[in-house]
Amino acid sequence: MNIQTRPDMLTTQDEYPTRLPGEERLSRRKDPVLWSEWSDDAPIAKAEAEHYAENGYLVRRDLFDADELKMLTETADLLREGGGDVPDADLIREPDSDAVRTVFRLDQHSEAFRRLACDHRLAGVAEFLLGDRVYLHQSRLNYKPGFAGKEFYWHSDFETWHAEDGMPRMRAVSASVLLTPNGPHNGPLLLVPGSQGVFISCAGETPKDNHETSLKEQKVGVPQPGTIDRLARDAGGIASAEGDTGTVIFFECNTLHGSNGNITPDPRANAFFVYNAMSNAVTAPFAASAPRPDFLANRETPEAIRPISGRLVD
Amino acid sequence: MNIQTRPDMLTTQDEYPTRLPGEERLSRRKDPVLWSEWSDDAPIAKAEAEHYAENGYLVRRDLFDADELKMLTETADLLREGGGDVPDADLIREPDSDAVRTVFRLDQHSEAFRRLACDHRLAGVAEFLLGDRVYLHQSRLNYKPGFAGKEFYWHSDFETWHAEDGMPRMRAVSASVLLTPNGPHNGPLLLVPGSQGVFISCAGETPKDNHETSLKEQKVGVPQPGTIDRLARDAGGIASAEGDTGTVIFFECNTLHGSNGNITPDPRANAFFVYNAMSNAVTAPFAASAPRPDFLANRETPEAIRPISGRLVD
Repeated sequence: MNIQTRPDMLTTQDEYPTRLPGEERLSRRKDPVLWSEWSDDAPIAKAEAEHYAENGYLVRRDLFDADELKMLTETADLLREGGGDVPDADLIREPDSDAVRTVFRLDQHSEAFRRLACDHRLAGVAEFLLGDRVYLHQSRLNYKPGFAGKEFYWHSDFETWHAEDGMPRMRAVSASVLLTPNGPHNGPLLLVPGSQGVFISCAGETPKDNHETSLKEQKVGVPQPGTIDRLARDAGGIASAEGDTGTVIFFECNTLHGSNGNITPDPRANAFFVYNAMSNAVTAPFAASAPRPDFLANRETPEAIRPISGRLVD
Repeated sequence: MNIQTRPDMLTTQDEYPTRLPGEERLSRRKDPVLWSEWSDDAPIAKAEAEHYAENGYLVRRDLFDADELKMLTETADLLREGGGDVPDADLIREPDSDAVRTVFRLDQHSEAFRRLACDHRLAGVAEFLLGDRVYLHQSRLNYKPGFAGKEFYWHSDFETWHAEDGMPRMRAVSASVLLTPNGPHNGPLLLVPGSQGVFISCAGETPKDNHETSLKEQKVGVPQPGTIDRLARDAGGIASAEGDTGTVIFFECNTLHGSNGNITPDPRANAFFVYNAMSNAVTAPFAASAPRPDFLANRETPEAIRPISGRLVD
């Protein structure tokens, strides 16, 4: 990485210290949530921008037509079954079985999903939310099977990306594209509205190669129950992001989220893209001895996306 | 137990063989679901009786007033904290912690809950549903904490009560009284409507002292995923029984049910009473070498309840 071209990266002061000895500590966020002023040519409505700024997430529906959804779900099925010749290094399997839970570097294993990642409905919105050109920090296909889908405990993605990947500031947003219907009982994304405004400096140092276990069950970098409880009460309760196939959930990098397990017969799948501002490209980790591998954090090719308009299929 | 007084118990032919070597097998239920003809003096509405017969469960709301609910929830809190001097033999704790998950023989540890068990709103309805006088086969307080509430996989209670407790026929009903609000995300009771009509003869013999592990995580006597999937599709999907504190969920002994885990801050608690018809008292287990202990299956004191009308508090 040539830092000469990004003078803003020459200073990498740690604005969000975490994984410290002693107690968990809370501090106010130092960055905007919404980095653009809304105007008539914004890619989302004013009420949507306000909802995102206030709650740290935004659910958008009916963005894709039936042909586009068919193409995406069929492509996802092929990838999950190994049809994309995905190398083992880019796969995560369920703790108790061989079922594929995650395909990493999704944009590199599929032309269709690369096109989706660049779509104006995702990347265009991300540019607006972050007030900058964007690149993919991470991309993946998540698959949560029926009957045995495991829970994922509350966490802030930013806390991990800052500590273990070296992401300097809160200027990233995730977009989750639902590839199955996601109702209340098959493990929908749960969020703590407003939690994006608080940085939780987690207690405890990062173990070596933490990512090898944290992707299955995160144990370091998670907030205390009392803290989650307090933030949830402040927000008037937990929010749940549910919807039909094709629903897109944008959530800010510091919004606390998690999901329950799923004993129902209905599996859950989604395509997940993390957009980071070009001005916020990763540096050395702030609280880990070595950065996580490239499939988790794009360190080598932060290439600005040119958002593409139009349908995904001809 | 003096079988002279119950000549119906002299024949204990096994109408529902289970825990057999080889494959799981399905058969039609041989007993009615609703054992009474509805009439104007029934304790539930005609539509409720029909819903129960068709779906295998019934949710009833707003049965108790604020004073009654306050008394019940305060009593439950005391019991959970050990204030009722509950012996360890009647407690089940969470797999990963010391938190109390279940208090068995609830009616014996609490006068208030004994009164509730005998209440016309519960026992009176149970008499109607079962077309007989009733006794308590089992009673317990369930507590599912926030953040770490564990899932409970799909199962038919009758399958276990028949195999391990010797309950001859499908003539029992459970009543779950919610002691906390129970929404979609804190582990509500999930049910497969219509599944009460099918007996699933489960594959595999019962291990010795199976109940010592099955109460935390049931591994024997559970249906195959494909079977649950098919029954759920027949029903048009899974049902969820949610409600405010005081909601009562009646579910037939053979209705498939389970619950997801709960990462939300909101705990769940309920008082759980199993009413069995006096004519259906337990015999020797049909598929286990020894009966389960008395706290799980009342073998010694099948005393007919006299339903009590009026409020729980003065």
